Amino acid sequence: MESLDFVPSNLNNFGPNCDSKTISHTTSYRVKRKKKKGMGTITAPWKQLLLNALESNSHLKHSSYFQLATVGCNGRPSNRTLVFRGFQESSDKFHINTDNRTHKIEELKHCPFAEICWYFTDSWEQFRISGRVDVIDGSNPDTFELQQREKSWFASSVKSRLQYLGPNPGLPRISEHQSEEEVRLDPSIGPVAAFCLLVLDPDQVDYLNLKSTERVKFISTLDMNGVKNWTSERINP
Amino acid sequence: MESLDFVPSNLNNFGPNCDSKTISHTTSYRVKRKKKKGMGTITAPWKQLLLNALESNSHLKHSSYFQLATVGCNGRPSNRTLVFRGFQESSDKFHINTDNRTHKIEELKHCPFAEICWYFTDSWEQFRISGRVDVIDGSNPDTFELQQREKSWFASSVKSRLQYLGPNPGLPRISEHQSEEEVRLDPSIGPVAAFCLLVLDPDQVDYLNLKSTERVKFISTLDMNGVKNWTSERINP
Repeated sequence: MESLDFVPSNLNNFGPNCDSKTISHTTSYRVKRKKKKGMGTITAPWKQLLLNALESNSHLKHSSYFQLATVGCNGRPSNRTLVFRGFQESSDKFHINTDNRTHKIEELKHCPFAEICWYFTDSWEQFRISGRVDVIDGSNPDTFELQQREKSWFASSVKSRLQYLGPNPGLPRISEHQSEEEVRLDPSIGPVAAFCLLVLDPDQVDYLNLKSTERVKFISTLDMNGVKNWTSERINP
Repeated sequence: MESLDFVPSNLNNFGPNCDSKTISHTTSYRVKRKKKKGMGTITAPWKQLLLNALESNSHLKHSSYFQLATVGCNGRPSNRTLVFRGFQESSDKFHINTDNRTHKIEELKHCPFAEICWYFTDSWEQFRISGRVDVIDGSNPDTFELQQREKSWFASSVKSRLQYLGPNPGLPRISEHQSEEEVRLDPSIGPVAAFCLLVLDPDQVDYLNLKSTERVKFISTLDMNGVKNWTSERINP
C-alpha cells in the first residue's frame, strides 16, 4: 500500500441522507432513488448501517480506513489498507484513490473483483463489501468517469496529490533522503498521469455487529430491466 | 467472519524475545534459532518490527485484530477480520483460531495462500504478511499439530470456546433469541469438532511506517537445505 492512499480527503458524501430500514428476516428491497435538494442518493439497505458506523466512529482518524483484498496475477490474494473517499453521487459505489503504478491496478485488470473488509474499532462493527472494481485513469474514454476522477483529485489535499509525483511505489528506494518538499505542484492543475480512481460497485455486503452479535447478509441481483434488487437475511454470527 | 474469532486469548508469545535487527539496504538474513530459558524463537528480520508494533499499540483492544484475505472458490477475493493468537513456538508462524464450518476453510483447501493486512492505528504501521496456511482440525494426523490445536483451545477463554458449540456460522438464523447461556461446556474438555487452528507460514512481509514513510519488503527463499533465508529491501512508499 502506498502511503498516499492514506491521506484522508473531505468525505462530503457522508451523512444521514438515506432512508433508514429496519432489518428483518429475508427482506426484499428494490433500490430506490431519492432526490433531496440536488443531492440524489440511491439507497441500498445496508448503506444506512454503514453511514451510522461512520458517524459513530468519526472521532477516530482511522475510521475511514479499510482493507481491500484483490487476487494477484499469481492467483494468490493481496490485501492492503486504503481510504474511503466517499460514495459516488446518486449511487452506492465506493470511491478510492490510488496510484496507477501500484500492483493492485494490474491485479484488478486481471481479476476485477475485490472485497473490502471494514472494521469499526469503536462500535465493533464489520462490513465485508464485495463487488466489481472499475479502474479509472486518464486514458478512460468515458467523460462522466473522467469527471469523477477529476473531482476526486481536487477533493484530496495538495499534500496527498504531491505523492503521485513521487518515485514509483514499490520500486527500490534509490535516494536515502527523497523529499516531497522538493516537488512543487500548482493546486489548480488537474489529475496527473499516476492518479487513478477506483470505483467499487458492491453486489454483496456482510454486516456483523459484535456488540449485539447480529449478522446480516445483503445480496443483490439485477432484474430484467437492469435494476439492482437487494435482499437481506439474518445469519448466524 | 464469525464473532468467536474476535474473542482475544492470552497472547503469551508476545514480548521482545527476538533479536533486534537494523534495517539496511538489501540485507540478507539467515533465519537463526535462539534458545532462551526453554522458549525457542526463530528470528525473522521483520518479527521485531511486528513485536514492537504490538507493544506500542497494546493499549488498544483491537491491536491484535487483522484482516485475512483468501481466494474464494469462485476465484473472487474474500476478506475478514481475525484475531492474532500468537506465534507458534520456535517459529515465525502465525496462529489463528477459527470455526471449521466457515467458508474460509473450504477456500483455503482450494487455494492455501492468504495475505494478512495488519494496520496499527496508533503507530500508523502496516504489515502485509503473505504465506501459506495450514488448516488444523481434529482429523489432522500429525501429533505435533494436534497438540498445537489443543494448546490454542485451552489458551482461549471459555466464553470463546462456547461459540464453537453454537449454530453453524453463516447459515440463516433460525431462532430470534439464541442464547449462548443455554450451552454449557466443561472447561477441562478438549477442542470440539468445529474448532480449527490456522497456521500461516509467511514467505513475504511488506512493512510500511506512515509516520516515517519508510517501507521495507522482506522476501524469503528456501536454500538447498530447506533453511529459510530472508532478504530485505527498502522500497518507495
